[in-house]
Amino acid sequence: MSPLFPGNPATAVPGTFYAVGIGPGNPDLVTVRAAHLIHTADVVVAPRSRMSEDSMALQAAAPYLRTEGQEVVEHVYAMVRDTDKTNASWMGIAEKVQAWLAEGKSVVQITLGDPLIYSTSHYLLSGLRTLGVAENALQVVPGISAFQAAAARLNRTLTIQRGRMTLMSGDDAAEVQDALAHCETLVVYKSGKHVDALRETLRAAGALENAALACYVEQENEFLCHDLGSLDTRELPGYLSTLVVTKGERAWHVAD
Amino acid sequence: MSPLFPGNPATAVPGTFYAVGIGPGNPDLVTVRAAHLIHTADVVVAPRSRMSEDSMALQAAAPYLRTEGQEVVEHVYAMVRDTDKTNASWMGIAEKVQAWLAEGKSVVQITLGDPLIYSTSHYLLSGLRTLGVAENALQVVPGISAFQAAAARLNRTLTIQRGRMTLMSGDDAAEVQDALAHCETLVVYKSGKHVDALRETLRAAGALENAALACYVEQENEFLCHDLGSLDTRELPGYLSTLVVTKGERAWHVAD
Repeated sequence: MSPLFPGNPATAVPGTFYAVGIGPGNPDLVTVRAAHLIHTADVVVAPRSRMSEDSMALQAAAPYLRTEGQEVVEHVYAMVRDTDKTNASWMGIAEKVQAWLAEGKSVVQITLGDPLIYSTSHYLLSGLRTLGVAENALQVVPGISAFQAAAARLNRTLTIQRGRMTLMSGDDAAEVQDALAHCETLVVYKSGKHVDALRETLRAAGALENAALACYVEQENEFLCHDLGSLDTRELPGYLSTLVVTKGERAWHVAD
Repeated sequence: MSPLFPGNPATAVPGTFYAVGIGPGNPDLVTVRAAHLIHTADVVVAPRSRMSEDSMALQAAAPYLRTEGQEVVEHVYAMVRDTDKTNASWMGIAEKVQAWLAEGKSVVQITLGDPLIYSTSHYLLSGLRTLGVAENALQVVPGISAFQAAAARLNRTLTIQRGRMTLMSGDDAAEVQDALAHCETLVVYKSGKHVDALRETLRAAGALENAALACYVEQENEFLCHDLGSLDTRELPGYLSTLVVTKGERAWHVAD
């Protein structure tokens, strides 16, 4: 152990499953705990969407894998927006994980971002519960979510004092409009596909001038736009963009 | 460098200020980047509230400090809910930071959680901008926020599919009621002081049975309550509690 990472670092415990968030994609935004668990696990499960050639999560975790004596399993899943099919697909890998746990192996599932924020860890944890795996054998290690990395790179305060922040996906412009009326900061995931509709919604709400957008944050092809109003949307490199709208601060009550 | 933390880790650059989030308080939930920046900075600024004997942030960062050749400055600030007084108090430390940067020193401000989510980094960054420090000399490193650590320890999914999550403080029960009507997951910070009023609001909204609460997460005196309805509020150890209300999932549209 390096003197820089001293103490009693976490070690993956036999028979335990860890849903480990590894952050936005840059290996150095992994937490020290996540790095140690990845390094010490018997089995590492890395989700890969059927659309991708590589598991982005596996790339970000690569520096922490052992060079030998560790099983790395890519779980290819279909990105279908059908809850039944999604649950069924994840039940398959849940059964494998259950078998590993029964053999006394420790299993880490790595996911980009945070395992509890729009993450496939939800399906795997649910599947393991359905199969009767004990609650204390299911551990979650938080990770930096994309919105935190986007806000950091855009250098925009998300919340302060009495501000409310809402996080949602960008499928429905009417819902985004509704949310804008009930918070000071709105973060919209998967906004790239709907960027034209979202821009109109923000313009109508008088919030377009306070909107910034980031794609592939902390990855090689990072794209930052500090002013959504002036963006040529043809430049947008992907649909996995994070929109950050900061409508303004809401200060403390003087009487507080 | 340990083989577990290889590659080209971040090194604090002369003349640059870093607002570094160090997570909920356990040193192993610090990111690898944050650990390296804390270790390589010339000056580390640790905020400490006037009410506390120790800087909690400094305790969490302690394993990553250098043993010599590094200046550690505790900045004691009053926890007054007055924006003008708060800004004035932080302008004092901003002037010191500006002077260090002008001398070519690298400066890291450590804060619990994430620097952009209800964090004093907001005031120091604002102060440095007011003093004319260049934008590219102001860097933000995200950290695990208390709500992520609370959800992980409570093992509760925050958002999935089309779910919306709102994060707010718990001062005003009417606002909490309003927020409950516009999201699937509500996270309320500083809920401990208002726990009785919040419980009534949740009961009236039919959401009390889905409410959990966590205090001092990832610290020695961690307190977890999976069912807020059954909590004896006299057991609540502190006011810095995180309330997590999961009203239910909102699934994808079938047509998506």
